[in-house]
Amino acid sequence: MVKIQEFQQIINDLIEKQDFAKSPTELYEPICYVMSQEGKRLRPLLTLLACDLFDGDIQQALYPAMAIEVFHNFTLVHDDIMDNAPLRRGKETVYKKWNSNIAILAGDTMFAMAYQYAVKTDPGLIPDILGVFSQAAIEVCEGQQLDMNFENTEKVTIDDYLNMIRLKTAVLLGASLKIGAIAAKADPESVKDIYQFGIHLGIAFQLKDDLLDVFGNEEKFGKKSGGDIVANKKTYLYLKARELADQLQLNELSILYKSQPEDPKEKIIKVKQLFNDLGIEACVSNVMEEYYEKSLEFLDAVNADKDKKAALRTFAEQLYHRVH
Amino acid sequence: MVKIQEFQQIINDLIEKQDFAKSPTELYEPICYVMSQEGKRLRPLLTLLACDLFDGDIQQALYPAMAIEVFHNFTLVHDDIMDNAPLRRGKETVYKKWNSNIAILAGDTMFAMAYQYAVKTDPGLIPDILGVFSQAAIEVCEGQQLDMNFENTEKVTIDDYLNMIRLKTAVLLGASLKIGAIAAKADPESVKDIYQFGIHLGIAFQLKDDLLDVFGNEEKFGKKSGGDIVANKKTYLYLKARELADQLQLNELSILYKSQPEDPKEKIIKVKQLFNDLGIEACVSNVMEEYYEKSLEFLDAVNADKDKKAALRTFAEQLYHRVH
Repeated sequence: MVKIQEFQQIINDLIEKQDFAKSPTELYEPICYVMSQEGKRLRPLLTLLACDLFDGDIQQALYPAMAIEVFHNFTLVHDDIMDNAPLRRGKETVYKKWNSNIAILAGDTMFAMAYQYAVKTDPGLIPDILGVFSQAAIEVCEGQQLDMNFENTEKVTIDDYLNMIRLKTAVLLGASLKIGAIAAKADPESVKDIYQFGIHLGIAFQLKDDLLDVFGNEEKFGKKSGGDIVANKKTYLYLKARELADQLQLNELSILYKSQPEDPKEKIIKVKQLFNDLGIEACVSNVMEEYYEKSLEFLDAVNADKDKKAALRTFAEQLYHRVH
Repeated sequence: MVKIQEFQQIINDLIEKQDFAKSPTELYEPICYVMSQEGKRLRPLLTLLACDLFDGDIQQALYPAMAIEVFHNFTLVHDDIMDNAPLRRGKETVYKKWNSNIAILAGDTMFAMAYQYAVKTDPGLIPDILGVFSQAAIEVCEGQQLDMNFENTEKVTIDDYLNMIRLKTAVLLGASLKIGAIAAKADPESVKDIYQFGIHLGIAFQLKDDLLDVFGNEEKFGKKSGGDIVANKKTYLYLKARELADQLQLNELSILYKSQPEDPKEKIIKVKQLFNDLGIEACVSNVMEEYYEKSLEFLDAVNADKDKKAALRTFAEQLYHRVH
């Protein structure tokens, strides 16, 4: 899709031309390190695509898109501290490469930088864009808190889980689109629809992430396979497995999810086996598809040129069929 | 001073009527805890006083003032993690009462909340106010980074130190005033002067803080006395002492500042004795007075009613003569 590639190039160029290498170096080196890693940069792409969908001026959405990417990276830097994650995009995380204090402070700085970018647009758009942005930021924090809560909560329901990933992941995809639509001065109904497109796509995206963590190709995925299992994470896969398991399987799963072996290989194999016995992969794939289809319905409902919607549809398809 | 009390009341009332007690409670309880502690709330007071100085509408400055107070409290929550500080305002710090992860995330949420408050003003003011706010936020982070750097830097100069406290402390006082002035649509020259008033007052304020940490009354100050000495902090007092010390005293100071005894009482007494021998209290007091006097010169230069300046002058005097 030409549009997607064109916008990706615009975003990559914009990020590349930023001067993150300021003083003190101890603070800005980690920021350079994070921002120079070519992640998927899905969120700013969504902002530009949404702006273009409503025939907006891409220039008005460009820095708000940048703001979202910087914000997203900030959340990863802080999340990795909280989750003790050693790797991100196949590289050492900031807290691991430097230390927690540096990661806290570099993250805080990125958050403030994100707001500096967010206001680089038509002044008349700023209140609305910032409203969406700050609200999303807060909800992302709430999602991360719920995610941490689940570690010490016995009874996590599937609805709890869906609410958590809505906040932690989907809201920012929705906000990325919404901000692009606002920058294009789209009609309020379409702004709502495009947001819901993002929410549903975001939930599908996270379910895919959960699936890839267990069933994905380690090298392509850029993270250690089975990381969620090692961390005893109560993902959709786990919660569904608990729902479908018989007493014997339930006991085994419980024991496995209380263990923290030094070498987790065997644990991962056993949990995977259980998931396979219960048909979890197909089951979660089905739920993911439902969210995916629902997201496309919201895209269809948007009041915009059908041809123009093709780019976002392609984006959704690529996300849905991704292997990493 | 009637004005100061009136504005303090307005700020206290505004903070009190905020509903911080949202869900998830694990995230918002620490925020309630922090925001319900009646700190000095100097910064929002400065914002209102500056707005009033230029005959502005206090209502336009009220939520930006709130934003600054929430932001300031967020920085304290994160700083306390980085500094391993157990106490703040005589109470347990968030990271100590809960844990680091909660403190990181509650802080992040407060940062986003601060921006939500910052935009609750005349839309025409938002770009300027946010520009000042984000710039200050970044500089505060830079200051904190420099502060952390000093721990592992042998050669910290007094200029390095002054630059660090300018960023870490003074900039936010300057920004508080500047935002109030912007809300009142003050002339650009006066905006600069009032900012410089804040910068110089802020440096004097921090020097006072350093003095109080060593020579202050523990109960009134709300922090453990000698905390900077225990932490081997390279404050102005320490750096001046190094400058004035003879070889023997220099050696003693070096040895003391490498030690981390389990019971620090004796260390504190010895360092204090050295400071006394070198006349450090008077020496730092003099420098502090210079910054204080300079701040008043900038206040004098401001293009505003002389009577109206009295409130800010009183504020400065109270800060200068405070004992805690």
